[in-house]
Amino acid sequence: MPVDERFYTYKGPQTLRTLLDVCGLDASADGDPEIRGIASAAKAREGDICFIEGDARRGMDIAAETTACFVTEQAAEALPEGVVPVIVSHPRYAHKCVGEALYELKAWTTPGDPPSVHPSASIAPTAVIGAGAAVGEHAQIAPGAVIGPGVQIGARTKIGPNANIRCALIGNDVTILAGVSIGEAGFGVTSGPAGAEDVPQWGRVIIQDLVTIGANSCVDRGAFDDTIIGERTKIDNLVQIAHNVVIGRNVMMASFTGISGTTTIDDGVVMGGRVGIADHVHIGAGAQLAAGSGIFRDIPPGEAWGGTPARPLRQYLREIAWIQKQVAPKKKPK
Amino acid sequence: MPVDERFYTYKGPQTLRTLLDVCGLDASADGDPEIRGIASAAKAREGDICFIEGDARRGMDIAAETTACFVTEQAAEALPEGVVPVIVSHPRYAHKCVGEALYELKAWTTPGDPPSVHPSASIAPTAVIGAGAAVGEHAQIAPGAVIGPGVQIGARTKIGPNANIRCALIGNDVTILAGVSIGEAGFGVTSGPAGAEDVPQWGRVIIQDLVTIGANSCVDRGAFDDTIIGERTKIDNLVQIAHNVVIGRNVMMASFTGISGTTTIDDGVVMGGRVGIADHVHIGAGAQLAAGSGIFRDIPPGEAWGGTPARPLRQYLREIAWIQKQVAPKKKPK
Amino acid sequence: MPVDERFYTYKGPQTLRTLLDVCGLDASADGDPEIRGIASAAKAREGDICFIEGDARRGMDIAAETTACFVTEQAAEALPEGVVPVIVSHPRYAHKCVGEALYELKAWTTPGDPPSVHPSASIAPTAVIGAGAAVGEHAQIAPGAVIGPGVQIGARTKIGPNANIRCALIGNDVTILAGVSIGEAGFGVTSGPAGAEDVPQWGRVIIQDLVTIGANSCVDRGAFDDTIIGERTKIDNLVQIAHNVVIGRNVMMASFTGISGTTTIDDGVVMGGRVGIADHVHIGAGAQLAAGSGIFRDIPPGEAWGGTPARPLRQYLREIAWIQKQVAPKKKPK
Repeated sequence: MPVDERFYTYKGPQTLRTLLDVCGLDASADGDPEIRGIASAAKAREGDICFIEGDARRGMDIAAETTACFVTEQAAEALPEGVVPVIVSHPRYAHKCVGEALYELKAWTTPGDPPSVHPSASIAPTAVIGAGAAVGEHAQIAPGAVIGPGVQIGARTKIGPNANIRCALIGNDVTILAGVSIGEAGFGVTSGPAGAEDVPQWGRVIIQDLVTIGANSCVDRGAFDDTIIGERTKIDNLVQIAHNVVIGRNVMMASFTGISGTTTIDDGVVMGGRVGIADHVHIGAGAQLAAGSGIFRDIPPGEAWGGTPARPLRQYLREIAWIQKQVAPKKKPK
Repeated sequence: MPVDERFYTYKGPQTLRTLLDVCGLDASADGDPEIRGIASAAKAREGDICFIEGDARRGMDIAAETTACFVTEQAAEALPEGVVPVIVSHPRYAHKCVGEALYELKAWTTPGDPPSVHPSASIAPTAVIGAGAAVGEHAQIAPGAVIGPGVQIGARTKIGPNANIRCALIGNDVTILAGVSIGEAGFGVTSGPAGAEDVPQWGRVIIQDLVTIGANSCVDRGAFDDTIIGERTKIDNLVQIAHNVVIGRNVMMASFTGISGTTTIDDGVVMGGRVGIADHVHIGAGAQLAAGSGIFRDIPPGEAWGGTPARPLRQYLREIAWIQKQVAPKKKPK
Repeated sequence: MPVDERFYTYKGPQTLRTLLDVCGLDASADGDPEIRGIASAAKAREGDICFIEGDARRGMDIAAETTACFVTEQAAEALPEGVVPVIVSHPRYAHKCVGEALYELKAWTTPGDPPSVHPSASIAPTAVIGAGAAVGEHAQIAPGAVIGPGVQIGARTKIGPNANIRCALIGNDVTILAGVSIGEAGFGVTSGPAGAEDVPQWGRVIIQDLVTIGANSCVDRGAFDDTIIGERTKIDNLVQIAHNVVIGRNVMMASFTGISGTTTIDDGVVMGGRVGIADHVHIGAGAQLAAGSGIFRDIPPGEAWGGTPARPLRQYLREIAWIQKQVAPKKKPK
């Protein structure tokens, strides 16, 4: 998926050598192709540069159309033919540098076209609407809300006071309560030559119609793809949705629930409070996750799981009862 | 408890038939009484319409004064005599629709009488004070704070920057730190014919004198009754208090603690960090809940509990020690 | 460490008797020294008054230079010679009262010298910069951000929208995302004669270069000393850092992690989501703390720990496997 220029300024294509020079990267590569964009290895297209971190294996999911790819020396041979390997010590860090040479996240106050606000929408005096943003009919933007450049807000959607929204497309009849932060950078850290480096996040947040998001919750934008929240999904206060999470429809998430990056949650899943889900897992439709459970694996559709690490709820309850029986309190002699 | 017209606009009484028409509800009812308000089944008064979700049993707590009640066909016979049963497929959803036909939550910027601010109070330039709100003597409202219509703020109370407060009565000498959200809708979801629907919340938040609420915490308003925080209760950052929770005096709640709906916490309870308490439970005075515990039942006064699900702290610690002993680490052969 | 007058107004020295009178404290003391400041017992200097709560033992860490010290009658004899014991029923409460008689936290909008903003810095229209604050070159302050009096913000540092920062020194190239609260009072409660009392917090927050703090996270200022976050440490959304926590360099903290007061975390520690760490513990360099773990003790450098209460990760995983084996699900007869 290409970087969305409503949210990121594209600085134009560069040759590979120029990019390496601009970034001060110590790299070796055969050839000097024009680089027009960045992408993940799996979704890169012609003109893109991607990266492979750590060991690569032949048959990995690397798009054959990719023009170039940052790799370590050991991993270079895993690349499909025709892809220019760019050998560096820290591939993800190199990709970060080149990404920032090609694109720039628009600041909250980047100037540009005035926002397009429907005459029936209500914008409170201290709300701020960024350049190129759009606000639909009868939408309400409460005081202190900050809407970044290019953000789209649907009809009848209500944005609470002091909510912050950037890099996002918000549907109709959505309710965002006070203090919510949507579209900030997902949490990604990589090693650079000088220590920990933030991994830049080039994606968006898509919030479908009739979603509700509780006070002070956070939804991060995707790294390359989008973070998506499906229709009628209802989210409580102080919930964290990480980058690239894809949530279906009619999902219910109680307070303090946290979903780690790239996890997928199908329709109708119900979560009690303080459920934590690891990254890259898949929760099947209609699954029920007990309050406080910690999910580190895929959950089949319709099942009830609980505990940390989670197991089928029945098994979890059996374990608790068994332990209590083994360790029965001693009776006090009178 | 009637809906407080400082926070909700009352649109006036309607006949039952008119309400059903306006809401497009498919319902059957004998009679066409005037409906003047909405309430929970236990507290409804003459003129109110309430609802019963799911199965009802004779002897349930349904006020005999209620004028009408949404029920499923099976539950209709549980109603006291004289109450008009209004038979629908989704009683709570129907009640939501009728509630919204009778009342409307005032928007953050609903116009009205100018707020009443004591001359000695300090209101920062970018703070917003809603119509009909009142700010007491020597109160301080920091920049970016948003005070909704009708909110009452007591003497010497300090509201932090970018805090958001609606549907709330705040006492004297209260400290609300930065980024707190008070009075947003509690998390309630019901099924409507098209999928998940937010349950509207018609109550308030009452915060008594000398309470402190830490940064970025949330306190939801009640569904029909009030969420109440008692005198001198001290709350850390990033805490969640759900709708209808009633907290006594001198309670201490450390960071990430979450209290689910309609739970009652008596005076002097002390909670370590990240305590989670299920809905509808009762924590006795002076109980001590260990950090990280998950409470799914009533706790007697003065006792120390821990673990998830919580058990007496001594039993919990015994279980941990026993398991560690059973699974002693194997010694490495040299 | 003396109280920093950029953040607190000093009202000037007072004699001990005057302070006790002003505060209405019932105390007995031999002598009437001039009191110029407040401090913790360990770090008090000449002119300071400190306190000892509860039992004191000879040989406790009480600075011999202290001029006076609030103590209970029983604890008075533990004081070094030359220190004036001031005998009260609630030493910490008395210290709070005297602290507030000597110093006052500057309000968010306390007037004073205009802030010093580098011409290349960008301050959004609805941002508020307090008196005496400084904003470095190319720093960006987003809309709605509130920067308290005296706060220092380094070069190229970005402060997100509706973030709140007080009592803090922020380095260069720091990224503070939306809705973050930095420098609010740490959570400390003591008993006064009338019930629970907030313990005042007289310290600061120091954030070193290249730190990133995720959306809606909180960092409290120190009680007497500082809360410190080291260079390149990367913090996810909805994280809580309590007062006096000292975090090293290149530390990684995922969402919902909470660090209790006065805990020290050395360089390169990596924490999964929802790690909780008790107060006054020490996490050695390079330790890895599994998601959801609850740490109540020191962790040696480089080790991996998990579970609640945490134990070596290998032992924790062995325990889980063992329990599951003991309580194998029963096979259903067909």
